[in-house]
Amino acid sequence: MNILTASINKTTLERFNQIRTQTEKICAPLEPEDTVVQPMVDVSPPKWHMAHSTWFFEQFVLGPYLKNYRVFHPSYAFLFNSYYNTVGNRVQRAERSTLTRPPLRDVYAYRRHVNEHMGELLNTLSDEKLEELLPVLELGLQHEQQHQELLITDIKYILSTNALLPAYHEAVSVPQASNPGEAAFLEVPGGIYRIGFQGEGFSFDNELGVHEVLLADFQIMNRLVTNREYLEFMQEDGYSDFRFWLDEGLAMVRRDNLKAPLYWLEQDGDWYQFTMHGLEKLDLHKPVSHISFYEAQAYATWAGKRLLTEFEWEAASQVYPPVEGNFQETGMYEPKAATSGTGMQQLYGDTWEWTYSAYHPYPGFSTAPGALGEYNGKFMVNQMVLRGGSCATPERHIRTTYRNFFHPDKRWQFSGIRLAQ
Amino acid sequence: MNILTASINKTTLERFNQIRTQTEKICAPLEPEDTVVQPMVDVSPPKWHMAHSTWFFEQFVLGPYLKNYRVFHPSYAFLFNSYYNTVGNRVQRAERSTLTRPPLRDVYAYRRHVNEHMGELLNTLSDEKLEELLPVLELGLQHEQQHQELLITDIKYILSTNALLPAYHEAVSVPQASNPGEAAFLEVPGGIYRIGFQGEGFSFDNELGVHEVLLADFQIMNRLVTNREYLEFMQEDGYSDFRFWLDEGLAMVRRDNLKAPLYWLEQDGDWYQFTMHGLEKLDLHKPVSHISFYEAQAYATWAGKRLLTEFEWEAASQVYPPVEGNFQETGMYEPKAATSGTGMQQLYGDTWEWTYSAYHPYPGFSTAPGALGEYNGKFMVNQMVLRGGSCATPERHIRTTYRNFFHPDKRWQFSGIRLAQ
Amino acid sequence: MNILTASINKTTLERFNQIRTQTEKICAPLEPEDTVVQPMVDVSPPKWHMAHSTWFFEQFVLGPYLKNYRVFHPSYAFLFNSYYNTVGNRVQRAERSTLTRPPLRDVYAYRRHVNEHMGELLNTLSDEKLEELLPVLELGLQHEQQHQELLITDIKYILSTNALLPAYHEAVSVPQASNPGEAAFLEVPGGIYRIGFQGEGFSFDNELGVHEVLLADFQIMNRLVTNREYLEFMQEDGYSDFRFWLDEGLAMVRRDNLKAPLYWLEQDGDWYQFTMHGLEKLDLHKPVSHISFYEAQAYATWAGKRLLTEFEWEAASQVYPPVEGNFQETGMYEPKAATSGTGMQQLYGDTWEWTYSAYHPYPGFSTAPGALGEYNGKFMVNQMVLRGGSCATPERHIRTTYRNFFHPDKRWQFSGIRLAQ
Amino acid sequence: MNILTASINKTTLERFNQIRTQTEKICAPLEPEDTVVQPMVDVSPPKWHMAHSTWFFEQFVLGPYLKNYRVFHPSYAFLFNSYYNTVGNRVQRAERSTLTRPPLRDVYAYRRHVNEHMGELLNTLSDEKLEELLPVLELGLQHEQQHQELLITDIKYILSTNALLPAYHEAVSVPQASNPGEAAFLEVPGGIYRIGFQGEGFSFDNELGVHEVLLADFQIMNRLVTNREYLEFMQEDGYSDFRFWLDEGLAMVRRDNLKAPLYWLEQDGDWYQFTMHGLEKLDLHKPVSHISFYEAQAYATWAGKRLLTEFEWEAASQVYPPVEGNFQETGMYEPKAATSGTGMQQLYGDTWEWTYSAYHPYPGFSTAPGALGEYNGKFMVNQMVLRGGSCATPERHIRTTYRNFFHPDKRWQFSGIRLAQ
Repeated sequence: MNILTASINKTTLERFNQIRTQTEKICAPLEPEDTVVQPMVDVSPPKWHMAHSTWFFEQFVLGPYLKNYRVFHPSYAFLFNSYYNTVGNRVQRAERSTLTRPPLRDVYAYRRHVNEHMGELLNTLSDEKLEELLPVLELGLQHEQQHQELLITDIKYILSTNALLPAYHEAVSVPQASNPGEAAFLEVPGGIYRIGFQGEGFSFDNELGVHEVLLADFQIMNRLVTNREYLEFMQEDGYSDFRFWLDEGLAMVRRDNLKAPLYWLEQDGDWYQFTMHGLEKLDLHKPVSHISFYEAQAYATWAGKRLLTEFEWEAASQVYPPVEGNFQETGMYEPKAATSGTGMQQLYGDTWEWTYSAYHPYPGFSTAPGALGEYNGKFMVNQMVLRGGSCATPERHIRTTYRNFFHPDKRWQFSGIRLAQ
Repeated sequence: MNILTASINKTTLERFNQIRTQTEKICAPLEPEDTVVQPMVDVSPPKWHMAHSTWFFEQFVLGPYLKNYRVFHPSYAFLFNSYYNTVGNRVQRAERSTLTRPPLRDVYAYRRHVNEHMGELLNTLSDEKLEELLPVLELGLQHEQQHQELLITDIKYILSTNALLPAYHEAVSVPQASNPGEAAFLEVPGGIYRIGFQGEGFSFDNELGVHEVLLADFQIMNRLVTNREYLEFMQEDGYSDFRFWLDEGLAMVRRDNLKAPLYWLEQDGDWYQFTMHGLEKLDLHKPVSHISFYEAQAYATWAGKRLLTEFEWEAASQVYPPVEGNFQETGMYEPKAATSGTGMQQLYGDTWEWTYSAYHPYPGFSTAPGALGEYNGKFMVNQMVLRGGSCATPERHIRTTYRNFFHPDKRWQFSGIRLAQ
Repeated sequence: MNILTASINKTTLERFNQIRTQTEKICAPLEPEDTVVQPMVDVSPPKWHMAHSTWFFEQFVLGPYLKNYRVFHPSYAFLFNSYYNTVGNRVQRAERSTLTRPPLRDVYAYRRHVNEHMGELLNTLSDEKLEELLPVLELGLQHEQQHQELLITDIKYILSTNALLPAYHEAVSVPQASNPGEAAFLEVPGGIYRIGFQGEGFSFDNELGVHEVLLADFQIMNRLVTNREYLEFMQEDGYSDFRFWLDEGLAMVRRDNLKAPLYWLEQDGDWYQFTMHGLEKLDLHKPVSHISFYEAQAYATWAGKRLLTEFEWEAASQVYPPVEGNFQETGMYEPKAATSGTGMQQLYGDTWEWTYSAYHPYPGFSTAPGALGEYNGKFMVNQMVLRGGSCATPERHIRTTYRNFFHPDKRWQFSGIRLAQ
Repeated sequence: MNILTASINKTTLERFNQIRTQTEKICAPLEPEDTVVQPMVDVSPPKWHMAHSTWFFEQFVLGPYLKNYRVFHPSYAFLFNSYYNTVGNRVQRAERSTLTRPPLRDVYAYRRHVNEHMGELLNTLSDEKLEELLPVLELGLQHEQQHQELLITDIKYILSTNALLPAYHEAVSVPQASNPGEAAFLEVPGGIYRIGFQGEGFSFDNELGVHEVLLADFQIMNRLVTNREYLEFMQEDGYSDFRFWLDEGLAMVRRDNLKAPLYWLEQDGDWYQFTMHGLEKLDLHKPVSHISFYEAQAYATWAGKRLLTEFEWEAASQVYPPVEGNFQETGMYEPKAATSGTGMQQLYGDTWEWTYSAYHPYPGFSTAPGALGEYNGKFMVNQMVLRGGSCATPERHIRTTYRNFFHPDKRWQFSGIRLAQ
């Protein structure tokens, strides 16, 4: 191993350790019981997240690359595979709460075991092998960062179902939010835009297939829609007036008797919101969050505007750089208010922004062979694209071209609204 | 009324009568009992179709335009409204089989009543009123044509659930199909294409918002995929090899234990197909039909090709005119085989073609005010676009720009596959 | 054939024809569409009842006993078998509405075909064979009478789901009911009672196994509970006060949001009831009907009384003969009011009486070998016994020892309440 | 407080402490995660059992009787009430897995808190108050013993759903079981038997209402049906031959694709059984356990015998005393084999015995006023009585007159078969 390689390996290892440690930091405030339940099928038990992201390295890195590596436990591949049909059978998604064993301490031991062997691997790998390994390793780290975001949103959901409404942590002290005032609408000129990822760094396969898209002129709101604005929609019968709603959205609203975003609670005429620091009075200046695509679309219709397409969003992000915002690194795990002013704000972080684009393949998209080809492509139907990351997204994980996707009825992510006209 | 108007009215009335008569012709072979059941929620009872398309004229034409018009029965608006929230309450979609009353003969009387008053209206309307009325009248006729197609597919489904597998009618005699041979792939050059309806005639609101789309070069299959080709996919474990499937498609296939298209039946090693003329041996040369988007997409992946987007389909239709094919007018109500040769075939009629495009609004789409604004817009999520019409579509109903849409799991329409590469 | 046999056969044939004709009389007012739908799984389409009761004779009488008999249609055994596993496959209960074919006229032809061959059989059978046949023939007739009762209750349910609330027939004119006044409680002395059927005539297997039961003294209400009395229960929060309810009854009431008996409808503060002659104002003097066991039990608890066991009911019927009441033969198909006075009334007819006895085998119960052994025994769990017959029961069908049985949540039968203390 | 009272109190306190300690002993081998999940709605999380049985004392004893008592936590009454409508709102049964908080250590603290105050109460209570309190206190202890049994069966179920099939504890060493040989059938003479609890000690309200029942002669099997015998039923197509089954049993078997008792597993032609000490080869000599009433009834029919009624069982227990068997106190928590010989065996302990008696009120049954009146009465429908206790039942908890009850489809209790003829 020459010096350069050693140095790359060292950096890689540091990054590996940093990301792995962050996952455990997120889980630190939890009780063992918090880490095993699954109150709805979309949510995974935190213990499962911790073990599954570890299994990824064991399955795709240590197994193939570390000589004489012995798996920590022969059953863990069965227990902690998520959805890779190629790799074999697995505990079904809806039954992850059966994993009361292995206990939490064993999962921590599993993480240490894999971390140590990853250290061993990175310290001993040849230049050639390293080059081959790096894309998979990087995918493993990006994968773990995705699970960090899911950990935060799943933990929030788990705590919210508990009748005691326990806080995850004390609120990070932030200056009192003030009213951001009326939103401005900023111009994005029409023309041909280049869409998709190009360049050196990491991207997911769903961002590849760079292609040109022809857009007309449009205007984009300079910040996210606030709780105050959303409350106005609610007070004008937003949830009961069918004219604002897609038919399936209306069906959901009626079936589930929805009257407000997820985590909102009305008590004696006042609105409260369950947050990572417990139940608190609704802050009207903060961006509305935890809404479904249906609600975002209904709000936009009520407001006489519309949502952006994902191509418009990406074009706007080219016109209004850079990538900065309230990400996981602030440790708040809740969105914060925009400031007043007409400049572009909150394009990244705070909440994901629902677009009116289906999550479909870009032209020329093809899945990689083998298990990792199952990463993204097989989900490309019935889901909508969200853009820009949230307060739960690691800053180094997000990009202008990043495509997140959820079914239009999902509400437990930090998801909000930006309008276009 | 001047002579010109009288003549227009006469033509309109003839067209009105022709379309209304055609609906009854479709229902003529049915028993009263066939016209009331609803074996799945997507299917409506034929009697309901007949009454609902009649109610449309009563509600939106006769009521507003014919002086002193008295509705045929005060409850029918409640019974036969489909989904117009604006108009008021209605029998819920899933409960249409409760409508054993009014009996079939009353529904025929209702049709006569409305037809007669429509004749009276068209014979007496002033020029000015006529101009105002024409778009609504045209929408009513287009609406009835849509229900003609649904009548055919719903009747097929209803008969197929009967253990006796009764034929709807005798097979129309057609020359014996021969093998169309290997498909060709025809060029469509890249560039900017104008998408959407423009011109004088009728279109639905979802085709409006003409806009330009930038496409890359691609090749399009010159005919539909045949039963023989699809059978090959089945025989190569197409339904069980997860690698070909979208995740939700795979879930459907496993949950419903699907092994073949709807209406296919295996007996003693041979494949049969339920058709409008009863159960018959599978004709390998005919286009595969009654498949879901999931199956179309899995087939395309297996074949190493892909589906078209709706924009590519519309571009191809501009390159390869004209609009002709095996439509409802042939009276076959089943697709027929392509002929050999490398020219473009079956772009229209035979089966709808699933595209890999979500049914979303075109740029600038907006819903009309009032009840008729509920026609299309509120369904613009979670559905996929199909193009080109089928053997159940009236020829005068279809256009190059026509956008049909169904959820990706639906199989009871005449829906098939055309590939691109 | 000697003269005596000929005479017996003639009587049998007359009885056969009378019962078969009565079934068709019940169905006469129906539209063909009424005869095919199945708005809930408990209800069977009237056309199915007509064909199934006919199939019974074809399967168990004509097939085995009439030489050279050819079945009317080879598929009908599959279509119209109800639940006899021994006999073979069949259309599943929940899918009886798929039977749009054979059309109604074919089912009538089927009935004629079987009736004619039954006539042929009974006119030609030898003495010996006749003796062998009689029990099966009698079972077939009793079976058809059971289906007559179900026809009436199923027709009522089918019509009630129709938004037009059509009447089955004009009300039979009855003298205006007057208030029966306060109920009396009549003594039944304790002791050993003989329970179950003994004697010459017909009984079902579930009545056999005569045995003695030791009862304590009790008192029995001299008439059925009235609508007025039941309304009082409702007005005293009967449906919302958990203290009156069995836990599963409460769960049903809350899940289905029940507030009144089936077929009751509140409009502008007044109560109406859907009857066989349409919607009418609630008659306070008539017995409450169409309630579940749960409601009967809750009412009894509220009233500070209790329901009878089936043994107590049968003991009371020995003390208070004879078997008479408002049965199917009156043609009313609705219960009528009791008169004032303290004598025993309504022990038979009007409404079935829920008992607090599970439908279990009597000591020594055993099922017959073969298909007919499936008649009753396999339903002996999770159902409650009802006694006394209703306004839909044929008078010659009922006995003191007759055990009817339904799940405790069922409400579409004519089922009511008699109290004990 | 006089000396006698002090002594009674001391004994009571010892008994209280013994029972409370036993609950914790049962839970000792569990991980915190094991104590919070709820893999099916019948099962409650062990942590919930521990807290709920504690809440009972707080709610019904400490609150009313200990002056100045302050509840441990104001929310716990809401969290840990089971089904007492009288007491107020509560976490719904199906949502007990949301209770990740309070964490396990808090629940132990809750138990200590209540135990200490119970000690204080019992040490200070006046004679008069003590007498008033004793029945409630006794009910609380009996209640806790019931939850001990449920803890054992729920823990077994929870562990069985885990893919690792973890053992609860090491097997208690027992002498190798030998073949008990052919069963004998013992005489029970007919006559009038007195049924129900009378005497001084504790009983539940559902045992009261002593009454006389007239029984015919019958014979009772001298031991429980073994795994070997049950396997024979399975091998003779017991699960697929409809003739043995009640209709609803057959529906369950087909819907859930049942082929064996719960916890049985076939691997490479051998049968295994999940037990409290992990997966082990099926012991043919042990009693069959974890079967539903439906399976018990089907087995009996196959065997040409029948199940007992609860009255027959109680009569037999009067003829064949005393109450002894393999109860919770052996610490095995699994049934053990009978020995050879024709004497009565296993009438108590090992497995509960399904009877063919519905769980209905005894004559004269009435519920107590207030919350404790909800204890038993409201479940008296749709459930079957089981008799005799199991290996999970505390010996001091069971009686000859004890009526346990479950729905006929339940299989997670230690439930088995004894035949009659």
